[in-house]
Amino acid sequence: MQTPRIVIVGAGFGGLQTAQSLANSGADVCLIDRHNYHTFVPLLYQVATSQLEPEYIAYPIRTIIRRFSGKRHQHKPKTRFLWAEVQRIDFKAQIVKTDRCAIAYDFLVLATGSKTQYLGVTGASEYAFPLRTLTEAVRLRNRILACLELASQESDPEIRQHLLTFTIVGGGATGVEIAGALIEMLRGKFRRDYPTLDLQQLRLIVIQSGDRLLAELPKKLGVYTYKRLTQLGVEVYLQTRVSQVTKESVHLQNHEIIPTATVIWTAGLEANSPQTPEEISTAKKGKFLVHPTLQLPEQPNVYAIGDLAYIEQNGKPLAGVAPVALQQGVTVARNIQQQLRGKSPKPFSYFNKGRLAIIGCYSGVGKIGNFAFTGFLPWVIWLGVHLVYLPGYRSRLLVLLTWLYTYLLGDRAVRLILPIY
Amino acid sequence: MQTPRIVIVGAGFGGLQTAQSLANSGADVCLIDRHNYHTFVPLLYQVATSQLEPEYIAYPIRTIIRRFSGKRHQHKPKTRFLWAEVQRIDFKAQIVKTDRCAIAYDFLVLATGSKTQYLGVTGASEYAFPLRTLTEAVRLRNRILACLELASQESDPEIRQHLLTFTIVGGGATGVEIAGALIEMLRGKFRRDYPTLDLQQLRLIVIQSGDRLLAELPKKLGVYTYKRLTQLGVEVYLQTRVSQVTKESVHLQNHEIIPTATVIWTAGLEANSPQTPEEISTAKKGKFLVHPTLQLPEQPNVYAIGDLAYIEQNGKPLAGVAPVALQQGVTVARNIQQQLRGKSPKPFSYFNKGRLAIIGCYSGVGKIGNFAFTGFLPWVIWLGVHLVYLPGYRSRLLVLLTWLYTYLLGDRAVRLILPIY
Repeated sequence: MQTPRIVIVGAGFGGLQTAQSLANSGADVCLIDRHNYHTFVPLLYQVATSQLEPEYIAYPIRTIIRRFSGKRHQHKPKTRFLWAEVQRIDFKAQIVKTDRCAIAYDFLVLATGSKTQYLGVTGASEYAFPLRTLTEAVRLRNRILACLELASQESDPEIRQHLLTFTIVGGGATGVEIAGALIEMLRGKFRRDYPTLDLQQLRLIVIQSGDRLLAELPKKLGVYTYKRLTQLGVEVYLQTRVSQVTKESVHLQNHEIIPTATVIWTAGLEANSPQTPEEISTAKKGKFLVHPTLQLPEQPNVYAIGDLAYIEQNGKPLAGVAPVALQQGVTVARNIQQQLRGKSPKPFSYFNKGRLAIIGCYSGVGKIGNFAFTGFLPWVIWLGVHLVYLPGYRSRLLVLLTWLYTYLLGDRAVRLILPIY
Repeated sequence: MQTPRIVIVGAGFGGLQTAQSLANSGADVCLIDRHNYHTFVPLLYQVATSQLEPEYIAYPIRTIIRRFSGKRHQHKPKTRFLWAEVQRIDFKAQIVKTDRCAIAYDFLVLATGSKTQYLGVTGASEYAFPLRTLTEAVRLRNRILACLELASQESDPEIRQHLLTFTIVGGGATGVEIAGALIEMLRGKFRRDYPTLDLQQLRLIVIQSGDRLLAELPKKLGVYTYKRLTQLGVEVYLQTRVSQVTKESVHLQNHEIIPTATVIWTAGLEANSPQTPEEISTAKKGKFLVHPTLQLPEQPNVYAIGDLAYIEQNGKPLAGVAPVALQQGVTVARNIQQQLRGKSPKPFSYFNKGRLAIIGCYSGVGKIGNFAFTGFLPWVIWLGVHLVYLPGYRSRLLVLLTWLYTYLLGDRAVRLILPIY
């Protein structure tokens, strides 16, 4: 029998885990991504808020592959990386077409993740800053620092006020984490670099459509987060919807207009689905419906995982978080090997270890099992968990050192407005 | 008497040193730069060759100012930073016009440095990669890594050969340092990330117009450098001039055509002179002629330093290196204070501590006084000197750790193709 060819599209949490779990399967594995690095998405907001350098949370895919492939395969590697953008997938011919070449597969794993969705709000895609990729994080950091520079040399108080108003749309984990990090940055030691800046004028606003923050966590945690952010000086608008974003302002559905130079968009996302000539059954947000085994209903040799896949457990859809994608990666690798042995794939079952979010220094919220807790403990667990899951010893060391610097000194290490054209 | 206003244009070595030397002068100092960071130019090539992160060699100007201003001036700082691009300088009205505002001065220090000059070679500005700014260094790094990616998935040997040919125009310190760093990177542990890459096809070419490398140093050092680079596998073309750069090749004046995907331009530079309505006497490369006191001949309250200024010592023009700019910064600060006290400015005198360049791991060349030496000693002195002059303890620690990693393990830490649009 010929060596089976497995193609994985996307090197996020799900795709990378699949590749790792298949490393010793004997199959020829090809991992495709449009970037040559894996982005550790949960820490993106720390890049945007001048805490971490972009390189600390971006890990070169080839280096990861080399490490898990081990030395045995050094001369005849079974896992290879292809830096390319997938253009179209032909299920009938079993071919993935990229901008560089076409690749035939026996099994296909789709792990293309999600992208920002602007929920039909006029002007949002033009003027709001999304935060899903490393480039977007650096761009947002540049914008925040540029606003501080411009405000500190501006004599007109109205323009200054405008430059110093930051509006975050979305009160989920990302929105809350950015808000907390940003207010601590601007009120901390960092501001000594801007002695002429009047922070009385600083406004930081979080707009949330639901009736509480962190809607996916128990109510108690949302209430705590609201209180904590408000204490820090953040204005939280609950049950408020944005109707329009312009270059200078955010319009709310209640006709209020907030003048703001910077709008950060964390409100919506949709599946980043690859193009296919065949019809694919989708759920809301364009997610691919999959069997409990994670196979596409019409294609038994094609799997979808992570943010791309829609799957329910105990009657509720699984959230688009890293642990789901990681566990699905393991399941898919096992299921493909089952199929290769002529056996049936097994259904995926998610083991929920809990959810955590941090608000600021020494303060977070978490839910592990039925236990919901707030304050220092979830904060320190959050840091520990992210440090352990971050790929690469070098990155871990650098992130740890930077966190010590950030949290012990209350300062920010990063301040560059690095030109990204 | 009113507090004198001193404006410094450019926060390179010269401008920053001037600001620091004037920190306790009692004058109002305004430092203008189009970036919010100081670039440690001598290490730019290490960013381009995947050794250092861009952030390690870029230091935020506001942080530097805060540090040397000390705590006394925290509430009423005497030195301020303006992030702006200078558009025009009006000597008669004593006003610097920027894209953000206009600033009046009593004394002006011009330290705008130099920019790449393509010596009239057709196509060079379009297709060659310069290396004068941080963005250019990251762009070159992206290009080198992208060539490796594309070559490792290319089946046509001719295209592969083309992608793996890197041509460096210019055999001065920058050209030599890039060549050595690049060949060591591609032949070192780094290449294990590209198991399918055939390094037999790698070509690294240095093109030098003169009859030896490092023309500004004693002949013996150029000969050593030639031998060392050749041993490492670099092809050095001496007494060769480039007539044209195209998207796919370099044309030489002897009609030879080298097919090459990447051309790195280190051959020429010219003064980056600010626009003025008045005529200014210039020397070659557009440099401003200055009195021995560094004043412009027609403007006793305007100084020019660093790469912008043309000045001779012992009948020979001073080279455009960091120590010259640093020492001129000290002199200018002293001369302005002399003028403020009603005394005459004193002539500048350059104390040459020596010149150093490194070729690769454990190998460099240097001239200190009349003593020219090669090998390990100048290499280790080079590292030490650059570490000491690099601003910021944090950057020093990170660079030191990275160098240990790079040189002890023979690997490269950086591998990201970070999208810069």
